[in-house]
Amino acid sequence: MAQIDLKSIIQNMTLEEKVAQLMQLSGNFYYGLAGEITGPFEEMGISEFVVKNSGSVLGVSGADTVRKIQAEHLKTNRHGIPLLFMADIVHGFKTIFPIPLAVGCSWDMELAEKSAEVAASEAAVAGVHVTFAPMVDLVRDPRWGRVLETTGEDSYLNSAFAKAFVRGFQGKDLAVDQMRVAACVKHFAAYGAPEGGRDYNTVNMSERQLRESYLSAYKAALDEGCEMVMTSFNTVDGIPATGNKWLMRDLLRKEWGFDGVLISDWGAVKELIPHGVAGNEAEAARKAILAGVDIEMMTPCYIRSLKNLIESGKVTETLLDEAVLRILKLKEKLGLFENPYRAADAVKEKEVILSESNREVACELAEKSCVLLKNDNVLPLDKQQNIALIGPFAQSSDILGAWSWQGEVDNTANLHEALQALTTNVTVAQGSHVETITDEQVTEAIEAAKAADVIVLAVGEYASMSGEACSRADITLPEAQLHLIKQMKTINKPIAVILFNGRPLDLHGVLDEADAVLEAWYPGTEGASAIANILFGKVNPSGKLTMSFPHTAGQIPVYYNAYNTGRPYDGVSRDHYLSKYLDIPNKPLLPFGFGLSYTNYIYENLRLSSDTMTADEQIQVSVTITNTGNYTGEEIVQLYIRDMTGDVVRPVKELKDFQKVSLNPKETKEIQFQLTEAQLRYYHQDMSFTSDEGLFEIYVGGSSEDVLTGGFTLKKMYTNLND
Amino acid sequence: MAQIDLKSIIQNMTLEEKVAQLMQLSGNFYYGLAGEITGPFEEMGISEFVVKNSGSVLGVSGADTVRKIQAEHLKTNRHGIPLLFMADIVHGFKTIFPIPLAVGCSWDMELAEKSAEVAASEAAVAGVHVTFAPMVDLVRDPRWGRVLETTGEDSYLNSAFAKAFVRGFQGKDLAVDQMRVAACVKHFAAYGAPEGGRDYNTVNMSERQLRESYLSAYKAALDEGCEMVMTSFNTVDGIPATGNKWLMRDLLRKEWGFDGVLISDWGAVKELIPHGVAGNEAEAARKAILAGVDIEMMTPCYIRSLKNLIESGKVTETLLDEAVLRILKLKEKLGLFENPYRAADAVKEKEVILSESNREVACELAEKSCVLLKNDNVLPLDKQQNIALIGPFAQSSDILGAWSWQGEVDNTANLHEALQALTTNVTVAQGSHVETITDEQVTEAIEAAKAADVIVLAVGEYASMSGEACSRADITLPEAQLHLIKQMKTINKPIAVILFNGRPLDLHGVLDEADAVLEAWYPGTEGASAIANILFGKVNPSGKLTMSFPHTAGQIPVYYNAYNTGRPYDGVSRDHYLSKYLDIPNKPLLPFGFGLSYTNYIYENLRLSSDTMTADEQIQVSVTITNTGNYTGEEIVQLYIRDMTGDVVRPVKELKDFQKVSLNPKETKEIQFQLTEAQLRYYHQDMSFTSDEGLFEIYVGGSSEDVLTGGFTLKKMYTNLND
Repeated sequence: MAQIDLKSIIQNMTLEEKVAQLMQLSGNFYYGLAGEITGPFEEMGISEFVVKNSGSVLGVSGADTVRKIQAEHLKTNRHGIPLLFMADIVHGFKTIFPIPLAVGCSWDMELAEKSAEVAASEAAVAGVHVTFAPMVDLVRDPRWGRVLETTGEDSYLNSAFAKAFVRGFQGKDLAVDQMRVAACVKHFAAYGAPEGGRDYNTVNMSERQLRESYLSAYKAALDEGCEMVMTSFNTVDGIPATGNKWLMRDLLRKEWGFDGVLISDWGAVKELIPHGVAGNEAEAARKAILAGVDIEMMTPCYIRSLKNLIESGKVTETLLDEAVLRILKLKEKLGLFENPYRAADAVKEKEVILSESNREVACELAEKSCVLLKNDNVLPLDKQQNIALIGPFAQSSDILGAWSWQGEVDNTANLHEALQALTTNVTVAQGSHVETITDEQVTEAIEAAKAADVIVLAVGEYASMSGEACSRADITLPEAQLHLIKQMKTINKPIAVILFNGRPLDLHGVLDEADAVLEAWYPGTEGASAIANILFGKVNPSGKLTMSFPHTAGQIPVYYNAYNTGRPYDGVSRDHYLSKYLDIPNKPLLPFGFGLSYTNYIYENLRLSSDTMTADEQIQVSVTITNTGNYTGEEIVQLYIRDMTGDVVRPVKELKDFQKVSLNPKETKEIQFQLTEAQLRYYHQDMSFTSDEGLFEIYVGGSSEDVLTGGFTLKKMYTNLND
Repeated sequence: MAQIDLKSIIQNMTLEEKVAQLMQLSGNFYYGLAGEITGPFEEMGISEFVVKNSGSVLGVSGADTVRKIQAEHLKTNRHGIPLLFMADIVHGFKTIFPIPLAVGCSWDMELAEKSAEVAASEAAVAGVHVTFAPMVDLVRDPRWGRVLETTGEDSYLNSAFAKAFVRGFQGKDLAVDQMRVAACVKHFAAYGAPEGGRDYNTVNMSERQLRESYLSAYKAALDEGCEMVMTSFNTVDGIPATGNKWLMRDLLRKEWGFDGVLISDWGAVKELIPHGVAGNEAEAARKAILAGVDIEMMTPCYIRSLKNLIESGKVTETLLDEAVLRILKLKEKLGLFENPYRAADAVKEKEVILSESNREVACELAEKSCVLLKNDNVLPLDKQQNIALIGPFAQSSDILGAWSWQGEVDNTANLHEALQALTTNVTVAQGSHVETITDEQVTEAIEAAKAADVIVLAVGEYASMSGEACSRADITLPEAQLHLIKQMKTINKPIAVILFNGRPLDLHGVLDEADAVLEAWYPGTEGASAIANILFGKVNPSGKLTMSFPHTAGQIPVYYNAYNTGRPYDGVSRDHYLSKYLDIPNKPLLPFGFGLSYTNYIYENLRLSSDTMTADEQIQVSVTITNTGNYTGEEIVQLYIRDMTGDVVRPVKELKDFQKVSLNPKETKEIQFQLTEAQLRYYHQDMSFTSDEGLFEIYVGGSSEDVLTGGFTLKKMYTNLND
């Protein structure tokens, strides 16, 4: 690859050209390029010059379209700087994978990586260079609409997925492997903790909490080489992230050494004004560029104000040059100076997109993402059984979930179709809509149910009930469907509920009523087939929840790695003055790490290779697991620790490792984990990242609430001087 | 008063005697003083020596008892150091005032002060020297059981109440005015923000949030001369408050200059162990004394470990001496060295306690604490009307609320009795219990309702459903009572609901169904009379909510002084990508500052004396208010500001001042507020407490959501150097 002299390009650019390089506009600004500058252009004060010299485009795909826009662009850009095409490829491009929260439940890093690789290849041939993914925001509040985009409530697991996704999207060399795309980790930082679970709302968080739980997944993505970072909409310590110098300059760039492109989220630069930390666009621009935001997405603060700010000495031109250089470097890394069209190829689009092999990955990931929440001898179904498939999702293809803009709902098989592919004994009835129910629907459903051996109830939320700006204060199933379940319960037939939803739900009215419950989330393009495979036992479900399911919205937040308090409640004590509710338990309805199988596993004989450890030693943790049932299964074995006495309070459990182990019926395996001192570190009072001498408990099991317990002592390595 | 040489007393004390001075035990350790050291003594490892030399006693009252214990104590204490008697006198001693959350709704600092003075006098004659009050924890979560003990969600109002209570409890000179008691502000700090509203749970809070909202009321109490501070059970930045050196040494003692006695909450020193920051009692003791905790309440970490810690050099004896000196100084201030029995007097007890004048204060405060939430021409009632009084609180005296341990429920008039004192036209039916309902109850209630002109429904929570360790995840009225309301609604008679509860409730199922709703909280000893006076129009209700009533638990936290976000939702916009819920509004069901009257007020003509202000100027804000109805009334006029552009995000409204104004029918008054630069200050990025130049909006009205709007510009006074 020829070395491009980016700095000399920058030297030859005018101030206006450089500022335009920082502008990101959506495709509609380009589609009409030949025509007049009207509508949104004028409204935003954007001239044709800006469009022609802008650095990147948002949300455009399709090989022919991209090639055409790029060709037009290069015709008029006097420096020959290619456009960067960016888009939200969150859980697949056209082959839609399960939503990330579901992928989280697979605990399968290889498949997660593979899914990102597939998504990258489909996007790349459609002309996309950068995806706004992975989203790695830690979340503890199921009211938040974007909970579906995260892999869950645990920073260790989120970090592992962050790395897997980045590997999958980016591969090893973006210039060489043009079927990959650059990744952009988002939303930096702590976007997943909006107050009240209301999207975009204030985040109130201490630096300690930020570092202890929220930052590590972003950092993990960067450690894996993630090229870009996106700012979040929320405040961090009173300053919106997009104008937060401490967060972006001091922490992200200086402390972490990130030198890639930092992009604002949609409109976030101008939103510094309603946030109330900038009085006008110029102030917003100044705060954002000072914080280190390179690309302004969809608002014109930079293009309207940066030139003046620089000419009046309020912003140094150096800051602008640095931003432009980072953008050009990314273009160089992607090989765009050599081949501005990169992988965009209409012929390849037909080959790659929705290919059989891509669909296979999607199906396998969907199978591994489903979580069996309950099963009282109902599943798997027998093909001889007469099945009544009932519910708003029986024949709905609205199972792709939010952030699947290129996904084709109309071409997605629904559950009825998928079951019909495996059996002829299915009758179907709608039962209810998602939010409404009629007497006729109930009557028809009861008839179908009476004639069947088993009822399969496909219920859930519209995909549009989660996602951006889709927060719900009520996290139950809509009343109409709860009513449907009640009606079905009167038939006295076994009920298997399949849940399609984008958040942990309050499952009162479902879990007790059903005989089996399969959490299918939004399983994507091949989701219906995956569910059918599970229902008929072709696949043994193995997913485990990565987010706690609360008893009620009134229990939020509830998460497994909370602190102990001074008055912990064990769930049974009769003492009054303990940390508890009068009306519900402290524990969630379904805990982190929980998920059933068609078989059963017994954990035995937890052993530690030593009961003491020093900083340069390792402890080997062993456990034997036996498959006592009749199905081959894959179990997710989880290792947690608890630091019994810390410099600051420590979680009652912290996931530190896990393994997926496959076991044939009656097979026993010994599983081993290595535990090192590095895994025991955390942020102390003085923000040093160290470990404590003293007792640690070790927990191993198939769920955060079902574990064997051991322990060891970490021997003193240094004196803790913080008192 | 003779000057006591406290330092020479301390010099003559042994290490054991000094440590014992730091011990606080409950009365049962003393009642059996003559007998053997068994039971709790042994369990805690407490010797007779410790009991005889301890510095203070908890929860003992009664002039004779106190005098006896003090006399015994002085017989054996070789230094003649009197015991300090402390107790929780939270909202009255025997004359119980409304719960603090209700007192908050009075916005009446004079009456609040008077209530504390009355409580102090009753407690003082019963031998109490120190009350563990005021509780000034700011709270935004109605699930928390102790929400009843606070005056609400606003730091300005909480601070004003903190001062009023301290003035009332302490008077001007505790040695001279022995009918007063020393106050102990609690719970330092941020106890009102437990995660999930679960009592004692982790508090996650940034220093910014702590300073901006949570600390000011504690500081206000101290500025008013409050003698003592109590630690909170929760963590502050990862360290339990009771062992938190930053909070107690650096902030409370050094930054704020507090040199009074710091006491742990009940058992909180030893709770450093389950919190996981101390491995044993000695570590807990060390952390607490290093943090500056003088008195250890009810756990034996100090008495078992301090001596060893000092002798082994892990704690300096100076720290111990300082703690002892602070305790002795408080005893001196209370005049105990001169008169160890102080006001304890069995004759005075009979005169003072529950005196007519005390009851009058309680009645007036209850009248002013009730908040009329709705009134569609039902109230006030006419004495000619036939009233059906129905509901679990119709004949219940469980209306004192938690923290009224000396209150006498049995001697408290209930609503039925109070109404009967004013009219003969009342029939009563129970309707339901608090949590259960029978068909017979419904039948009887329907019969009573049918025969009446108006239904008065007295519903609510058991007093034991709020208070310490009484958190509820569900904040609706218990289902039985919602059912009762539904049944009553079928009768088609006007319904006036009287609410008895300790927290803001989700009032769905109440507010729409009723024609009038009066929030009576737990109104105390004279509460029933106060309600009767309001129902019959002898008193025009004037209370205003000091805590938002959420739509549902799923909306928590919701409070009036939130930040704006970058995508604020105005409640009507059709844009999708705004900060909102899909299923409920952003605004609470009932906002902060809201409360109706039997008359109506019109606010007009908001004027500012200038549209600019500099640091040494004031702006006069004027508004005219007219009583357009037929009742004389008292209106609480509220002044809010909004800093439109800040160095960090600013609340959409902040209460800065208020006035209570009495208006006769058709009367108009002009109200004036003075606004100074000092009121515009807040904590900036660098934690400097300063103001911003630029635009401020001003809002004046009878509720945070019903205001007139004005504005002015603060002129540049200094350069903001934080960029």
